Amino acid sequence: MILKREHFDEKQAQLYDVIVAGGGAGGLSAAVYLARYNLKVLVIEKGRGRSFWMQDLWNYVPRVVSGKELIEGGKEMALHYGADWLNGFVEEATDTGEEFHVRVKYRFKNSDYPVFRTKYLIAATGLIDVLPQLENMQNVYEYAGYNLHVCLICDGYEMTDRRAALIAGSEKAINTAFVLNWFTPYITVLTLGAYPVGDEMRAKLADHGYPLIEKPIARFLGKDHVMDGIEFADGASIKVDTGLISMGSLRHDGYLKNLGLLTDGGDIVTESDCRTSHPRVFALGDLKKGLNQVSIAVADGTLAATAIWKEIRRASAPRKWAAPLQEAAARAEESARPEIGLGAPRGG
Amino acid sequence: MILKREHFDEKQAQLYDVIVAGGGAGGLSAAVYLARYNLKVLVIEKGRGRSFWMQDLWNYVPRVVSGKELIEGGKEMALHYGADWLNGFVEEATDTGEEFHVRVKYRFKNSDYPVFRTKYLIAATGLIDVLPQLENMQNVYEYAGYNLHVCLICDGYEMTDRRAALIAGSEKAINTAFVLNWFTPYITVLTLGAYPVGDEMRAKLADHGYPLIEKPIARFLGKDHVMDGIEFADGASIKVDTGLISMGSLRHDGYLKNLGLLTDGGDIVTESDCRTSHPRVFALGDLKKGLNQVSIAVADGTLAATAIWKEIRRASAPRKWAAPLQEAAARAEESARPEIGLGAPRGG
Repeated sequence: MILKREHFDEKQAQLYDVIVAGGGAGGLSAAVYLARYNLKVLVIEKGRGRSFWMQDLWNYVPRVVSGKELIEGGKEMALHYGADWLNGFVEEATDTGEEFHVRVKYRFKNSDYPVFRTKYLIAATGLIDVLPQLENMQNVYEYAGYNLHVCLICDGYEMTDRRAALIAGSEKAINTAFVLNWFTPYITVLTLGAYPVGDEMRAKLADHGYPLIEKPIARFLGKDHVMDGIEFADGASIKVDTGLISMGSLRHDGYLKNLGLLTDGGDIVTESDCRTSHPRVFALGDLKKGLNQVSIAVADGTLAATAIWKEIRRASAPRKWAAPLQEAAARAEESARPEIGLGAPRGG
Repeated sequence: MILKREHFDEKQAQLYDVIVAGGGAGGLSAAVYLARYNLKVLVIEKGRGRSFWMQDLWNYVPRVVSGKELIEGGKEMALHYGADWLNGFVEEATDTGEEFHVRVKYRFKNSDYPVFRTKYLIAATGLIDVLPQLENMQNVYEYAGYNLHVCLICDGYEMTDRRAALIAGSEKAINTAFVLNWFTPYITVLTLGAYPVGDEMRAKLADHGYPLIEKPIARFLGKDHVMDGIEFADGASIKVDTGLISMGSLRHDGYLKNLGLLTDGGDIVTESDCRTSHPRVFALGDLKKGLNQVSIAVADGTLAATAIWKEIRRASAPRKWAAPLQEAAARAEESARPEIGLGAPRGG
């Protein structure tokens, strides 16, 4: 069910098996598995994450799917199987020893700050790509995720042999040109004039024939989500067929700061089942080390949910079939359809 | 393109970057990624694998998909991006040092035995579940994959609090009852009379209240893919709402035997990017250690394809932008649309 204010008292009183912070590809997959393991799960989603901005996803079998379809479809599945859902922002997770207290900001205005309790925590809040900050951000959103890409692995194919602008957020990020050139050599590198470029990098770019333009962007040119050029602050412009933004990303991981999770270059270090250095905290998808791909996040959700289920199951008393029920079943053999009250499903 | 006899001469003469043995969830994901990395890839699929038999898949976000939709949709994607496809049975893969020779049986009658060459080999042939062998196998196929399940992780939820028959292929497999009881305690264990059951297991089943029936199955009862009972060879019958077949599975891995891959309990041992103990052989999904889930196989395809692309890319000369093209582009700045012959895409 989707939680509203009127549910907070009841839901704060209970102990969830798992709270999933983040309702993107990884969090949704975890939620669907957990709900189908008949566990009590709450997904907390702030909205407008990377999946939300993603246009069509071309590499996730069996068919092209948009980011919105992915998150809406996954949410529908999770709710169908009994997961709880809260639209809110996870502010802080506190480890009390036996459980976590997860404080959520609910609504931007007239906010509530409910605290939900859980045995396990799954961090699936992902990251958000840094975009060029233009005066008119609508101009950026018009093209970002269409033919102004943010993920080389996802969309390099779409840039094959096209004239591509590489918008690099730092001198180090310019090195993306030397991976992008697997797909196309027609690369123009843009620094936005935001940082100096050393002689060695200049020489390497010159050797490869990739022009370097070091001035602010005024706006992207084009229409109907098809960018076909870039205009600079000085009024000059270039024509391009596509672009790649390589300006890094911001992790949504502030709520984890008190848990002291082991990281490597900012990425959360995990075991093969997505368990972090804290035995009851799992991290999925873009927050952890490894490829930032929808398929990986979805598998991560499977792995974390299954590992958690296994632990909870092993710690639970086995369910036995009480004799009266067996006898009732035996008696019913002769009749058309036995009437055994099986009770409500665990998860229901 | 789908390869036919008339293509064999041309295709045997070339060197593929990757041959993917198996066109299920993992192989298709690998093929889509590889094709989108503009690599030359051939998928070889024998047909009627586990995905083919799978009915609806309830746990793969963002929506319910059938096995057939999965393999048909994925195949369409792979072909769209330029993968080659061959309907055939991989008989043997031989390592010649620099490349693999992959011998395929094409067509059951009037067979051809083409040998294709590749730098890398992806083993994605998966496994097939062992089913009860009844006189009338159509009776088994009528229900298997519907409410007569083969995967507890996938379908335990569907069995929640239902009367379930556990068809165990060995005494060891009876232990599945003590996992299935997470979902339902109303379990009847069937051995088909195929093996003896020791006193310890009998006592454990009795303690849990799970009846044990040790005689051959004559047929499954029900209609329209809904099993509602089981009739035994002696004419007795029981009523059940669902069933789980736990009789093990057969791996499709005979063609790998000469490669000496490291295995553990039959599963191929892999690194985190699905690389086997052979540096140019990768194994995906059900063939490798770990969970046998579609989401895992799909991620495995992503990982293996990306690792292979990285190696091939790093071993390739960088593509530079020749000066004449840059000048042409500069000249074209003034005109509406530059006319630069960019040549055919690599993968096309």
